[in-house]
This record gives sequence, C-alpha cells and structure tokens, in this order.
Amino acid sequence: MAIREKVFNTIIGCFKRHGAETIDTPVFELKETLTGKYGEDSKLIYDLKDQGGELLSLRYDLTVPFARYLAMNKITNIKRYHIAKVYRRDNPAMTRGRYREFYQCDFDIAGQYDAMIPDAECLKIVHEILSELELGDFCIKVNDRRILDGMFAVCGVPIDKFRTICSTVDKLDKMAWADVKKEMVNEKGLSEEVADQIGEYVSMQGGMDLAERLLQDQKLSQSKQACAGLSDIKLLFSYLQLLQVTDKVVFDLSLARGLDYYTGVIYEAVLTQTAHAEDSVSVGSVAGGGRYDGLVGMFDPKGRKVPCVGVSIGIERIFSIMEQKASAEKVRTTEVQVMVVSAQKNLLQERLKLVSDLWNGGVKAEMMYKKNPKLLSQLQHCEEAGIPLVAILGEQELKDGVVKLRVVSTREEFDICRADLLAEIRRRTSEA
Amino acid sequence: MAIREKVFNTIIGCFKRHGAETIDTPVFELKETLTGKYGEDSKLIYDLKDQGGELLSLRYDLTVPFARYLAMNKITNIKRYHIAKVYRRDNPAMTRGRYREFYQCDFDIAGQYDAMIPDAECLKIVHEILSELELGDFCIKVNDRRILDGMFAVCGVPIDKFRTICSTVDKLDKMAWADVKKEMVNEKGLSEEVADQIGEYVSMQGGMDLAERLLQDQKLSQSKQACAGLSDIKLLFSYLQLLQVTDKVVFDLSLARGLDYYTGVIYEAVLTQTAHAEDSVSVGSVAGGGRYDGLVGMFDPKGRKVPCVGVSIGIERIFSIMEQKASAEKVRTTEVQVMVVSAQKNLLQERLKLVSDLWNGGVKAEMMYKKNPKLLSQLQHCEEAGIPLVAILGEQELKDGVVKLRVVSTREEFDICRADLLAEIRRRTSEA
Repeated sequence: MAIREKVFNTIIGCFKRHGAETIDTPVFELKETLTGKYGEDSKLIYDLKDQGGELLSLRYDLTVPFARYLAMNKITNIKRYHIAKVYRRDNPAMTRGRYREFYQCDFDIAGQYDAMIPDAECLKIVHEILSELELGDFCIKVNDRRILDGMFAVCGVPIDKFRTICSTVDKLDKMAWADVKKEMVNEKGLSEEVADQIGEYVSMQGGMDLAERLLQDQKLSQSKQACAGLSDIKLLFSYLQLLQVTDKVVFDLSLARGLDYYTGVIYEAVLTQTAHAEDSVSVGSVAGGGRYDGLVGMFDPKGRKVPCVGVSIGIERIFSIMEQKASAEKVRTTEVQVMVVSAQKNLLQERLKLVSDLWNGGVKAEMMYKKNPKLLSQLQHCEEAGIPLVAILGEQELKDGVVKLRVVSTREEFDICRADLLAEIRRRTSEA
Repeated sequence: MAIREKVFNTIIGCFKRHGAETIDTPVFELKETLTGKYGEDSKLIYDLKDQGGELLSLRYDLTVPFARYLAMNKITNIKRYHIAKVYRRDNPAMTRGRYREFYQCDFDIAGQYDAMIPDAECLKIVHEILSELELGDFCIKVNDRRILDGMFAVCGVPIDKFRTICSTVDKLDKMAWADVKKEMVNEKGLSEEVADQIGEYVSMQGGMDLAERLLQDQKLSQSKQACAGLSDIKLLFSYLQLLQVTDKVVFDLSLARGLDYYTGVIYEAVLTQTAHAEDSVSVGSVAGGGRYDGLVGMFDPKGRKVPCVGVSIGIERIFSIMEQKASAEKVRTTEVQVMVVSAQKNLLQERLKLVSDLWNGGVKAEMMYKKNPKLLSQLQHCEEAGIPLVAILGEQELKDGVVKLRVVSTREEFDICRADLLAEIRRRTSEA
C-alpha cells in the first residue's frame, strides 16, 4: 500500500497539473448499460443477484460509465480523471480474488475542440507520468484507426473482415509476422497477396516524415479515410514537438488496439528496458488510449455526440514493477517520525503527555500500549519498523526538563530541552 | 469531490500521525463470512448472481472484513485505517443509487495491550479530527457494554431481554424517556418498576467522578461486570486527561449503540451545535466505535481471540455538513493556477510551448483546445473557473520576450520576463 500511495500521488499530481477534476461514478451500472459494449468479453461481467429492483452489474471499466455519465448529465465538455476499481469474472478456478478486482486509472478530455490539441495533451501526460515514475526507458506508439481501415481497404480486405483482421494485426507485438500472416490466410481467409500487402505497411515505423511519405503513397492516398488519419498524425507530431515529447513517440502502423469504440488516433506506451530476460523486446504495455467520438452518443436518447479522447494508465502493472524494484529494499508501511519510550517503570503518564503534545504539534508519533514496556523491546520495535527517532523519558530526564533523543541509524543520543523538541524532530525528519 | 478530498486529507493525515498503516480488502466477501454478523440487517446485503464459482456478497461494512483478514493472515497486532465504500440494499424504490453505496472510514487497533491505552487513543483521534474539520461544537459520549449489562442485571431485566432492552435504551437520543419507558413496558414486557430503575441510571451523565460514585452505588456495585466497566471508565478518563481531551468527553449511561459485537467501552461523537432548527439537541452522530474482543475469534478455526478497539468516522455525514456549508461560497473543482491565453490569432504554437514549460516546471496550467480562441472568452473562462492568474501572449510580448501576467481578481496586468515567470506564478499562487 505504501508503494501504491506513491504511484497514486505521482499520477494524481500530473492530472491536477493539467487542470483535471475528478468525478466518481457508482460501482454498479444498470445491466443494460454494459450490454453490447465489450463484445466477447461480456461474459466476464459480474451481475448482481436479482433481489428485487433494477438488474445491476459491477462496472467492467471506467470508460463506459464515464460516457453514460456525460450523456445522462448532458455534459458537453469536461477534463476529468478517475481512479477506481473495476471487476471481471476471470476463471475463478485459475485466478484468485485479487485478479477479479483491480484499479483502472483514466484521464479523458470530452468536448468539441480543434483537431489533435487534446490528443497531444494526453500523450504529454503519458510522457510526464512514465518519466516521473522512473520505470526505465519507454516508447509511445501512435497510429490512427482511420489509417488502419484505409490500409485494409486499399489492400483489398473485405469490409466485414476489417475488425477481425485488426485483431490479428494487434498480435504483432507478441508474434512474428510469419505467424500473423498464417493466421490471416489460414484462419481469416485472406489471400496471400492481400496479406503481404498488409505486411509491407505494418512493418513501417517513423515520425512525421513517415506520415508525409504515406500521404504521397500511390495506393494508400486513394483512401480518403487514410489521408484524414495521416494528416492528423502530421498535425499531432507538430504539437508533440512543441510539447517536447517527440523523443519517445513513434508512428507505428502495426498498432491496432482491440477495443471497437476507437474512432481516430490510438496510442500505447510500452517499456523497452531489457531488465529481465534475454528478450530485448517490450516488457509490455503500461498505458494506452485513443479517440472515441461515438460512445457518448450511444447513451444519449437523441444520439448527440460528444467527442472524447482519453488515456488509461496501466496502474496495476506499474504497481508490480515498482513492488518488484522495492522488494530489495525494505519499505515502511507507516510514516512514524518518532517513538516515545520510557527508560524505567511507571512512566506511562509521562509518555501519554508527551505523545499527546507531539500529535497536537502535527508530528507522527507512537508509543507502546503497555504500562511498563522494556526499554530494549521498545528500541527493537523502532529498528524493525524503521522509525528514525526515539524520544526517551527517564526519571533523570524528567527532573532536568529534557528528553533524550536517540537517532536510530547512528545510535547517537543527546538531551533536548522539552521546548525545543518539536522543532528538533521536524528538522531531523524532514532531512531524512 | 473537491470538498471530499479536503475531508479525506484531514482524516488520513490524522491516522498517519498516529502511526497507522492502511490495508485494502476486496469489495467481495464469501457470502458465508457475512452471514449471521448483522442480525436483522442481513437482508440488506447485496449478493452476486451465481455465475459459477464461490457465492459472493458485497461488503456491508469494513469491520467484519477486517476481522476476517486478521484471522486469515494470523495477524495478532496492527494499527490500520481503511477508507472505502460499502454496499447496502436499501429499498430501491425509495432511495436512489447513491445511498446504496457509501464511504466508511475506520481506524482500528488490534492486539493484546494494557487496558484502556489504545481505547484512549481512539478518542484522541476523534477529538483531533472533529476539531480540525471545524464542524462546530461536539461531544463524545462514552459508556461500557459491561456497565449496561450489569445495570440491566441489577435492575431485574431477564438475561434474554438484555439485547432488546439495549436497543430501546439506544433510542434515548431521539425519544423522550416517557416514550422509551412505554416501549419497555408495553412492547418489551418489563414491569414499570424495573423500567423506572433503568430510567434512573440512564439519566446519569458525568465524568470520572460519576464512575467513582457508581462504584460505591449499593445496587450497581453488586454486579462484577459493572464494576469492571466502571473501573475501566475511571482509568480511561485518567488517560484522557493526559491526552487533553476531557473537555469534550462525557460518561453517559444512556449510550447503548446497536451492534452486537461490542464487548467493552463504546463511544459516539455528536455535534451539539444549534445551527439549523429550534432543537438545541444533537444534530446527529458523526463518529462512533468501541471495543470488540470476540469478533476475530469467530473467523479463526481455533477460535483464537485478538482484542480490537476501533472507531468509525461518519464521513458521509461530514461530507454533507461540509457541502452545505460550502454551497454558499463557490467551490473550485480544479486547482489550475494559471491559464495560458493568446491576445491575437495564430499563437497556438506559442501557447503550447509556454504551457509545456509550465507543466514541466510543476505549475498547474491549462489552455483552450482551440487554434484561435477569442481573448474575451478565454478571460471569461478564468473568471468562471476561479483560475487566479492569466498568462497572456501577444505579438508585442513575444517580441519583447515577456509574458503579460493578469491577476483575475484585481484585473491588474504587468509584463514578466519569461525567465522569471515560473517563480512569479508560484509566489502569487502560494500566497492565495
């Protein structure tokens, strides 16, 4: 939990720096709100027992509830973040409780704005968060749903196969092209020739220059859709330059992303560090998102659209990376600055008085809940819990109006006048 | 949400000052874990649909999951807080969604310690939180389950009626004694004489002196249980004096609290302000808790007990009080310090560059997602959103290498050199 708090603070700090507010939606949605939004995965939705009243389900993600909320409250523009748990019925025999509920962490900008300005801000946010968390080197892949669709069209993919071929392309980060091609031909029924044409495009990576080159591409430029996507990618890169994040952003035609509701730009951030095994490929996606201009309209009775673009930070994956890193060092679970201990018996009253003064002064302090604890066991507790300072009360100290302050790491001890104690503790623990 | 965040920060700050860590338990529990813990209220538990796998329910409070967690992980001492939502199936026809899920906010100390030391810390925490939130005057009522039981015994209540008479006593904060007595006699079948004896005791309020007097009380002192409770109340008050909180604490024999699992000290904090109506009585409970030494043992296969004492802060009630107070003033939903605006057309690039610099410098900033927004509409947005500063870019300013900084409240404007802008914004918004 201590590590999680650090991650939360970094991410929330970034969202606030970008002027986002937070809204909270209930953990339940009407069952019908979620129906037909997640394709095959709908079987993973948790339904509540029918105990009378509406039929309810637990939220499956934060995007659909957000879109429902905007439509219901007729909100046409907002910049919001939401960090909350979502629920999925993953095979209960295989996975344990903690995998059925996990955090999602979403930032979204809703509203009718000029092209690519909010989209660029989303990428800036990913860049800031991943840099600040020091997870290692990363890369943000960018593509556009319209470029993919245009590419499929000019390569000769039948229109009813766009989505399924898109899912196959999405596997390129885990599978070699040869296997992806096999799936396209053998399972999805494309001709070898069509698959090879796709293969040529999806191997392309670059920056603004690639978008410019493809706008001149004889075949691809025949698709209006593809051209619209390519122009937006160009515009996006020009904004990313001004936001100083192009060092990490790659225009990658193989990026597909599974979800059906994306309508424009899509992106995904992956860690590229070769920390663990031999594989020098990506360690996995830690953030992703895109533009979804049609989802809110699905919840509006009159079908009024609210364009949206958003990003979801893969906070659970970030937790595990940070926890793995931290498991080497010992992580403190509390933030106690000082422990009030007694050197002799019968000093409970004095300890209570002192710890009360410390709390009133805003210092994080604790004492043992025993009348006469042994000095050694009190000091041991400090060492084990990583408490940096000990305030020792003994009869001599009380007589002299002082407290013996002990620095746990060095075992130094010195007498501090009671009146100076608060300031001394603050000084020593703000340094640490 | 902005108000909620302030309340959360105050409360979590206090819990951490007292050295508590936080643990998180899942929103589901096995249905059987919750069965038989909440008496009549069990009908309000939300069950999940049987979709295969274990039968699950949504948590109803945070205390039972905490006790289950301690038993399962064999934890014998911990100081933890937990702020999370709980779920209750309140009549769906009458109440709307938001009442079916609400926050609970619990602090608990588990472990075998010397009497009344952790109990006193819980009361200190209530005192600190209510003082810091400035909710108005309050009073913390204290009693002990053993004193109530002893009192019922010496007054001649049959032992199988203790719990139900206890519930009737609990209504004294909302009903007059005459009505409570009527319920005892007419509905619960006590004799008038027995009821009158109870009536005498439950009208008593005081401090340590009252505990001392009752220890001498001819009748009550015949009950061993009552004497044990009264001695602990005395001890508790001696600690509360050292913790400097006796000004708000009252030993009140009418305090009963509904839940069955309390075994010793119980307490409840009420606001006493006469803010609203004519009633000069309490506005309602904002915190409550007590000692429950038996609950963890119910989850341990060998019945091993872990004594616990805890307090639950009525955070939803506190939210509404704070929101009511705040509805007079306008509450900002974001924390944006400065808005970057353009005075003329074609300055999008310059705005992006500046806002990027501000973000990189840790300043909370935003700009409009339009290529050429009107100056007036940008300034209006600042006024409406309560953004304190505006950084205006115009052609002249760019030529001079400055930014025009506008203070929204006074409409003052002055030129600031680009190099000094970050420091100037920080200086002006940390003052505010």
